[in-house]
Amino acid sequence: MKKTLTLRQRIAGLFEGTGDYQRAGHILDVALISLIMINVVAIVIESIASVAQQYYDAFLMLEIISVAIFAIEYCVRLWACVDKTKYAAIEGSNTKRRLKYLLSPLAIIDLIAILPSLLMFLFPLDLRFLRVLRLLRVFKLTRYSRAMQLLLQAFVNEGSALFAAFFIMAVVLILASCGVYLIEHDVQPDKFESIPAAMWWAMATLTTVGYGDVVPITPLGKLFGGVITLLSMGMVAIPTGLLASSFSEQLRKRRQFFEDAVNEQVHGNTINDGSLNDEQRNHLEDLRHKLGLSKLEANKAIKAQLNERNSHLFCRNCGKRP
Amino acid sequence: MKKTLTLRQRIAGLFEGTGDYQRAGHILDVALISLIMINVVAIVIESIASVAQQYYDAFLMLEIISVAIFAIEYCVRLWACVDKTKYAAIEGSNTKRRLKYLLSPLAIIDLIAILPSLLMFLFPLDLRFLRVLRLLRVFKLTRYSRAMQLLLQAFVNEGSALFAAFFIMAVVLILASCGVYLIEHDVQPDKFESIPAAMWWAMATLTTVGYGDVVPITPLGKLFGGVITLLSMGMVAIPTGLLASSFSEQLRKRRQFFEDAVNEQVHGNTINDGSLNDEQRNHLEDLRHKLGLSKLEANKAIKAQLNERNSHLFCRNCGKRP
Amino acid sequence: MKKTLTLRQRIAGLFEGTGDYQRAGHILDVALISLIMINVVAIVIESIASVAQQYYDAFLMLEIISVAIFAIEYCVRLWACVDKTKYAAIEGSNTKRRLKYLLSPLAIIDLIAILPSLLMFLFPLDLRFLRVLRLLRVFKLTRYSRAMQLLLQAFVNEGSALFAAFFIMAVVLILASCGVYLIEHDVQPDKFESIPAAMWWAMATLTTVGYGDVVPITPLGKLFGGVITLLSMGMVAIPTGLLASSFSEQLRKRRQFFEDAVNEQVHGNTINDGSLNDEQRNHLEDLRHKLGLSKLEANKAIKAQLNERNSHLFCRNCGKRP
Amino acid sequence: MKKTLTLRQRIAGLFEGTGDYQRAGHILDVALISLIMINVVAIVIESIASVAQQYYDAFLMLEIISVAIFAIEYCVRLWACVDKTKYAAIEGSNTKRRLKYLLSPLAIIDLIAILPSLLMFLFPLDLRFLRVLRLLRVFKLTRYSRAMQLLLQAFVNEGSALFAAFFIMAVVLILASCGVYLIEHDVQPDKFESIPAAMWWAMATLTTVGYGDVVPITPLGKLFGGVITLLSMGMVAIPTGLLASSFSEQLRKRRQFFEDAVNEQVHGNTINDGSLNDEQRNHLEDLRHKLGLSKLEANKAIKAQLNERNSHLFCRNCGKRP
Repeated sequence: MKKTLTLRQRIAGLFEGTGDYQRAGHILDVALISLIMINVVAIVIESIASVAQQYYDAFLMLEIISVAIFAIEYCVRLWACVDKTKYAAIEGSNTKRRLKYLLSPLAIIDLIAILPSLLMFLFPLDLRFLRVLRLLRVFKLTRYSRAMQLLLQAFVNEGSALFAAFFIMAVVLILASCGVYLIEHDVQPDKFESIPAAMWWAMATLTTVGYGDVVPITPLGKLFGGVITLLSMGMVAIPTGLLASSFSEQLRKRRQFFEDAVNEQVHGNTINDGSLNDEQRNHLEDLRHKLGLSKLEANKAIKAQLNERNSHLFCRNCGKRP
Repeated sequence: MKKTLTLRQRIAGLFEGTGDYQRAGHILDVALISLIMINVVAIVIESIASVAQQYYDAFLMLEIISVAIFAIEYCVRLWACVDKTKYAAIEGSNTKRRLKYLLSPLAIIDLIAILPSLLMFLFPLDLRFLRVLRLLRVFKLTRYSRAMQLLLQAFVNEGSALFAAFFIMAVVLILASCGVYLIEHDVQPDKFESIPAAMWWAMATLTTVGYGDVVPITPLGKLFGGVITLLSMGMVAIPTGLLASSFSEQLRKRRQFFEDAVNEQVHGNTINDGSLNDEQRNHLEDLRHKLGLSKLEANKAIKAQLNERNSHLFCRNCGKRP
Repeated sequence: MKKTLTLRQRIAGLFEGTGDYQRAGHILDVALISLIMINVVAIVIESIASVAQQYYDAFLMLEIISVAIFAIEYCVRLWACVDKTKYAAIEGSNTKRRLKYLLSPLAIIDLIAILPSLLMFLFPLDLRFLRVLRLLRVFKLTRYSRAMQLLLQAFVNEGSALFAAFFIMAVVLILASCGVYLIEHDVQPDKFESIPAAMWWAMATLTTVGYGDVVPITPLGKLFGGVITLLSMGMVAIPTGLLASSFSEQLRKRRQFFEDAVNEQVHGNTINDGSLNDEQRNHLEDLRHKLGLSKLEANKAIKAQLNERNSHLFCRNCGKRP
Repeated sequence: MKKTLTLRQRIAGLFEGTGDYQRAGHILDVALISLIMINVVAIVIESIASVAQQYYDAFLMLEIISVAIFAIEYCVRLWACVDKTKYAAIEGSNTKRRLKYLLSPLAIIDLIAILPSLLMFLFPLDLRFLRVLRLLRVFKLTRYSRAMQLLLQAFVNEGSALFAAFFIMAVVLILASCGVYLIEHDVQPDKFESIPAAMWWAMATLTTVGYGDVVPITPLGKLFGGVITLLSMGMVAIPTGLLASSFSEQLRKRRQFFEDAVNEQVHGNTINDGSLNDEQRNHLEDLRHKLGLSKLEANKAIKAQLNERNSHLFCRNCGKRP
């Protein structure tokens, strides 16, 4: 029997997309994502002077409406957060829970999204700097992307190796800019006037961007530059190789994790004769979806485990149960 | 005994390259591929003004002949499609089948390939726009490439991860162009006049293309630009790593799929004493070819499964059949 | 007992580096590699006008000596080839064998290496074209590199996939140059005067080289160009991903191949009680070296197979031999 | 019972960070790393003429203090090295050990870090060349990075393949510069004046850096250049693919190595009934940390081995110990 929910609980459910509110929560998400994207596009386009003048009113209207909606969203989330599964579990008063929510990264991003505009409305400022800061609204999208979190995981997993790659890059960068500075400074004092200035060339070369606005012109400088372009291939290859290896590893681990879960489910039920019940199947299906594995692969893993188990149920030699 | 085929059935077989028409179908394919390629090369060369004037007649002749052939091909395919295996299975009248074929992607590509020229012949237009549109004929080649479909599969498999990579890229792109716009707008108002204009620089930098037509010139702009060039290495590494991982995974899956098929064939025949009959060998050979595995690898997988099976046929302990 | 070898047999052995001539053959190889490299460096430096004038005599002397040595090498190889293991096995007269050798790729490369100079000595020509052609001598080095052949193998293995990637690239290239031609032709008729001219931009962009000598300048052209720079990341990612996957696969196959060889050696000797004799160990060591596996890895594979075999020699249940 | 240590032994322990000095050694490391980094940043900034003049005294002070510290560090390390685990094991007098340490790579790097400044202090020289050489201090950081050593290991493992890739690159580079020299020399004699000059273009193109300061302008040159840009994709793909494959392989080997160690520990203790004692757990935990594996993964490997062992302890058929 379902107990009656308070309005606050319903709204918390709506934001979390749990239970009955899965569908409504999804619609709300799509609406908010659309609003954020319209905002980002509008701010980008507004930076074109002629467009900004012509559609001044439309942009102002959109800004006022958006900030109003985001502000309401911010307040409602703050109000309802105490009924969210995560915060409801925290002991203490609702004020403490709300404070905790206020300081969470997502809440801070939400605040940053409305703050520049509120400042502009409250004070008679119209700084381009503040206007552009509104673009940070794009970070509000992080709340909705799960695949992105998986990608970022790969960066975290290879953290120490990527840091080492970054360190190698920094050493090569310093030596490259120092070398080219020594060689080219006298010939092109305006372009290689100091080591930091030479770093602009070294950076563009080592990342294979290669703008070409600054290039060595002496034969020795070109020889040195050629060696650095060769090193750039290694610089680019290291992070790419690390990520490729990390992505492969992630895939393997997820598959392994699923197989272990299947194994547990299969060998856990000792009563029936080697098939999975509905609850177990649902549990594995949920897991499969969460890990992003294909149905075919999952079914094969389950079948393999069931076969193995059944071959253990009956002795291979005599055909009887041991 | 072979039943007599109608002309339409023969032509459908020719286009499908099935049965007796394998060889003739292959020749037809090669002829059509050659014609498409000649067309593409001709349209590209025709855009050189001097060449177009000098060989006006030759290009016109080629165009008329090609469009005629493509138009005939289109009509014949439409007429014969009702006898193709895929469409013959659809219930309903031939009109319904032809309508279904008309709306299939390949038929639409075929139509696009002749439409611009037909419009130019019918109406007294000679627009460069329409002339160039004829280049879409290159898509007619997709019908013939299977390896390309496998490559595209990798993109589809990594769809959500690639979309997340694209999303990260978009966020970094927006922040990069917004940052460089703030820093460089006052110094280079012609090059960084708005955020969309700054995106041109950000795009060229984050993809490591690096044209160099627009570059930051202030020290702060160069520092910021340097950080963005570093981020570009990550931007390039993500899709490369994802595809590398996906290609490895595809290889592994195909090998696994083949081993499962071998397993089924080997353990399916319970009567004979552990060898494969000709039909089974042919079936596995077909599969091996389709999955693009090497003969050596396939033979090893078959041998391993046969050995395993034979070791099960006879008890390891007592040497007798269990 | 060793039979006395003829001079021709000794020289063939020297070139093949077999038996007693392993050491002498190695020295000969190093000497020839050094000569080729000195030649390549000399030809490159000779193209600098001032250097060519100043050291005219030295370059001429080097050229004459080198061509003489290469010509002698060519003749001696042709004369001795009939005693090489590979050609000795061919039936027929020595003339037939020599003709076969003459048409082998390596012999053709050797001929190309001396031909331009011979032509220049014989006829009173001094064409820059012919002088530069001498650089093809660098191909003589292919004879000595085995790791390079392994690398090229990866390209061959992924042949069809790389061809498909090339095909996708070609289609994108045509559409990109066609699109930018339509958009930019009227504004920059000198840079985008025809589709082939626009291809120069498309090529530099899709490979992320990005010279920047030709860039779109209209807003629409920059938007289109931005999309193409994004596609360039995919274009670069495909071959890299394919090769990364192929290299991993090669490693796996070589390891598998070694394990199979160990397996055969271990299960082949049924008499002794589960250890390898010296001959078998030498055979596996040779194989390990050829496949480029580490000693640690090889020893582990051998140990694992021996353990497995020994566990089969004695029944797991009763401890007796079955 | 702990024996009393001499001052020299304590200092050796401090530098090695062993035993009681783990914490103090860590603080010393962080202090020295910070000093090195401050030095590098200072030398880079000092190359800006205006900054160097304004803060002349500050830079001089920092330099004197740093060189003093590095000199003291150098002497103390030299004095205490005889008590380091590695050098204490060497037979002979302390002088011999110190000489051995003096010639070790790390000691040479330490010497190079102070030598340029000592030369400048001793002799009345103020050469920019010597000032910049002080940047080699950055190499002192190699002592502290272990992840970097793992990265460099991948380069060593793929040594022969990377060398082959380098060789292919060199051949393509020579042919590309030779080709573009032949085609463009007459039209742009200032930019493609010799093959070494043409190499500058070929280098920038094959590594996809693409400065654009030198580009072919003839149609034939652009066609040839287009082919070279295509080849550049392969040139970049080879080292990236090799490293990606090598990183994957390293991961696999480390996992395998850990599993083997677990196997040994598990099957080594025959007395107890299949669990690991504290000493064994600590040993494996150390190993896990050294190999950089996750706790989850390590626990799973241990559990799997214990299960396997326990299933062997008791007969699968009869439930009794065999």
